[in-house]
Amino acid sequence: MAVSGAELHPDIAVLAPLLGTWAGEGAGEYPTIEPFSYIEEVTFGHAGKPFLTYVQRTRATDDGRPLHAETGYLRAPAADRVEWILAHPTGITEIQEGRIAADGNGLRMDLVSSEIGRAESAKEVMAVCRSMEVRGDTLTYSLRMAAVGQPLQHHLSAVLRRR
Amino acid sequence: MAVSGAELHPDIAVLAPLLGTWAGEGAGEYPTIEPFSYIEEVTFGHAGKPFLTYVQRTRATDDGRPLHAETGYLRAPAADRVEWILAHPTGITEIQEGRIAADGNGLRMDLVSSEIGRAESAKEVMAVCRSMEVRGDTLTYSLRMAAVGQPLQHHLSAVLRRR
Repeated sequence: MAVSGAELHPDIAVLAPLLGTWAGEGAGEYPTIEPFSYIEEVTFGHAGKPFLTYVQRTRATDDGRPLHAETGYLRAPAADRVEWILAHPTGITEIQEGRIAADGNGLRMDLVSSEIGRAESAKEVMAVCRSMEVRGDTLTYSLRMAAVGQPLQHHLSAVLRRR
Repeated sequence: MAVSGAELHPDIAVLAPLLGTWAGEGAGEYPTIEPFSYIEEVTFGHAGKPFLTYVQRTRATDDGRPLHAETGYLRAPAADRVEWILAHPTGITEIQEGRIAADGNGLRMDLVSSEIGRAESAKEVMAVCRSMEVRGDTLTYSLRMAAVGQPLQHHLSAVLRRR
């Protein structure tokens, strides 16, 4: 997952502020569960090809037990467009598509699920909206979700620092 | 991705023969491309939760340049059922579902895509069938695919050895 010796592919130059490993804390809520807090580590890497790799893991703040994980790839089909291709161990896949804007100090992405795949044993997820912002060495994100019969609403947010 | 110190979750005991890192060579063909050969490395890991992690990378046999990659998770919702949740940097997601049978010397899985997600910039993929077999320290797989207007047919096969 680590950044390789290869140069970043020019088609994904806009994604450069994401590169590296980020760690910090987040909080989650949803009408069907108790609010919870978590410790998170995220790595965006590349191998010289026109996509970033993405690996994420969270652990419970209280006892460190593994909670969620997700993995996938980011693409930038145009200078202001981003696609995020995701697999979850909960049996869900997401295709996220949206806008990206970068400047000298970071970037902001706002995406919405264009497709959600669901294994037979998975819970129902209807829609996921993801926003992510990098300012210098700080990464913040929020995630809204419509799932298990509940309308689209805030589910997760976190603040991570570059390692 | 490495196997952690945690014990394998009992719900995925059937997947145990996959655990570890595998490396070897494969070959691909499709009516729309020239036949090609590749070097592959695959790692199945776990963290004590009821799923395996999966990371795959291939390189060209001739000059070692990176070719494909894919990542995701395996679940075993019943003793003879397996779900494989996949993301591809080509902008595709797959939910693979099928049967698994394990014995003291390995396992065999035969899966078919129940859902395929596709980003706006991705090529059309209609269906993917995956078979995988482990016998001792040898892993073999084959993959059939219907894509870009072509009917379901053989695309990839490889033989990997446990590292």
